[in-house]
Amino acid sequence: MNTRMDDLPGIDQIRDAAARIAPHARVTPVLRSAALDALSGAELHFKGEHLQRGGAFKFRGACNAVWALSDEQAAHGVVTHSSGNHGNALALAAATRGIAAHVVVPEGAVRAKVAAIERAGAILHRCAPNQAAREAMCADVQRSTGALLVHPYANTNVMAGQGTLALELLQQAPQLDALITPVGGGGLASGVAIAAHALKPELALFGAEPLGADDAARSLAQGDRVTTVVPDTVCDGLRALVGERNLDALRLHRVELITVSDAETIAAMQWLWTELKQVVEVSSATVLAAILKQPQRFAGKRVGVVLTGGNVDLQALPW
Amino acid sequence: MNTRMDDLPGIDQIRDAAARIAPHARVTPVLRSAALDALSGAELHFKGEHLQRGGAFKFRGACNAVWALSDEQAAHGVVTHSSGNHGNALALAAATRGIAAHVVVPEGAVRAKVAAIERAGAILHRCAPNQAAREAMCADVQRSTGALLVHPYANTNVMAGQGTLALELLQQAPQLDALITPVGGGGLASGVAIAAHALKPELALFGAEPLGADDAARSLAQGDRVTTVVPDTVCDGLRALVGERNLDALRLHRVELITVSDAETIAAMQWLWTELKQVVEVSSATVLAAILKQPQRFAGKRVGVVLTGGNVDLQALPW
Repeated sequence: MNTRMDDLPGIDQIRDAAARIAPHARVTPVLRSAALDALSGAELHFKGEHLQRGGAFKFRGACNAVWALSDEQAAHGVVTHSSGNHGNALALAAATRGIAAHVVVPEGAVRAKVAAIERAGAILHRCAPNQAAREAMCADVQRSTGALLVHPYANTNVMAGQGTLALELLQQAPQLDALITPVGGGGLASGVAIAAHALKPELALFGAEPLGADDAARSLAQGDRVTTVVPDTVCDGLRALVGERNLDALRLHRVELITVSDAETIAAMQWLWTELKQVVEVSSATVLAAILKQPQRFAGKRVGVVLTGGNVDLQALPW
Repeated sequence: MNTRMDDLPGIDQIRDAAARIAPHARVTPVLRSAALDALSGAELHFKGEHLQRGGAFKFRGACNAVWALSDEQAAHGVVTHSSGNHGNALALAAATRGIAAHVVVPEGAVRAKVAAIERAGAILHRCAPNQAAREAMCADVQRSTGALLVHPYANTNVMAGQGTLALELLQQAPQLDALITPVGGGGLASGVAIAAHALKPELALFGAEPLGADDAARSLAQGDRVTTVVPDTVCDGLRALVGERNLDALRLHRVELITVSDAETIAAMQWLWTELKQVVEVSSATVLAAILKQPQRFAGKRVGVVLTGGNVDLQALPW
């Protein structure tokens, strides 16, 4: 096999992913708000992935990765060291195929998220709260069980699964002029860029990134991948460094990044809660924050705005 | 004219109302949650009126009342002394017909709600914060402008407008076994009961009422209208005493009331936010609280659950 596990998927792989996840994933609605259109000066089409299974778009990629396995591979189960939405999505996806999901959980991870992952049926493996311990434990699990590692974003099948969101959105709202997603590790942004441009090459693509985790924006500006950023942002879903392949896709598809402060994101989150009346998590609000920060780039345009997730701790709201 | 302004509407008037408001009101979605079905042991079909224009079901009744006026009546405008969702809905409805809406606002009313009513284009009239001052100011406005009083619930056209919700829900989910709404003044509960039983006489009807404003439950239990309850509940939308005609409708249609504590309602509100991912106001959560309190009455049934509104102050959440 001469393809790497994190090669960028093509549109055919994304179409295959759409067919593969269709029996399991939800077709999420596109939501509108006259008040938010007026506020932004644009026509905003919100893709509600907080209403996806598991409360986040992550189910698309995890489900595709799980169902792309051969029966023989699947028998050994899957493993990841994300204790956030990807860990939960992988546990749910594994359950749809009846295979084991191992999730490595660092001490100190958010209890509510860990409890959800356990409820979804995953086998938890506790480790020390640092990257080295997580990777070592992950390798341990792989060795002892034969489980396949499903990386949250640097994985071809995961990227292809996230790309299905763009196929679905462009079917629901074919008239879009532009599309914006949050950027963390870049799994969503890369999959969406590939799918969106395959269907509509003239679509303007944007990414929203927290100022406190702006490695992708810096990487695109400098031409080299910047790995020195120490994430400092309230957006817990966007703290990962962008993957190498993911960055390639952003560059190839001329995705323009807009960075936003946490204060701007929190204000946008409150607009989404009060006007759209949707419970979205803080990372999801970066996209509206970016539009409100640079309205001239979106004025009068029909914009697809991806709301990535809705898993919040109501006891610890960021305002 | 020998019909009174607060006579109960019939199904024909509710069908007329549906046709009258169709160009202005939204068809709100029916939402499902596997997690809340599992939690309750029933099949819950949530009618999302928090996504109605103005963020509450109140637009239906106000819009019907405004468009039922003759051109001559309409020229004088409309007036109400509700500074909550009904005041906002009446202002929005009057704007759809291009007529004046006068809203009497007591000193100390919630600033955010008053600001929304003003944004909707209403003419505000300030008065002292007591019932006598509100009614006096309302009478003043009626005398000086000729505006027609649109009472929030003791008004035939308002009840007919609220009843359109049941027509719509039973079209979207014809298989329902039961239906539950919150009960405040009873405008919604009475309109819905009349419409629902006209279409499906065997439907079991329920109402949820805060323990701290349980005048309707006491009135049904005693057989006489109880007017001595001093409302003490966090559910600001449900503090009104049930209207006489409204109570007649609840009795006639054998609506069973379930009372819930504020703590039970707040817990249910958190379930709705985290599982359904919808921003609904506290009054809307009484219905889920009632189902979770008396699960045996709903076990295995297909239940229509009316989420009445989504206007919340994010700076003053009740937990």
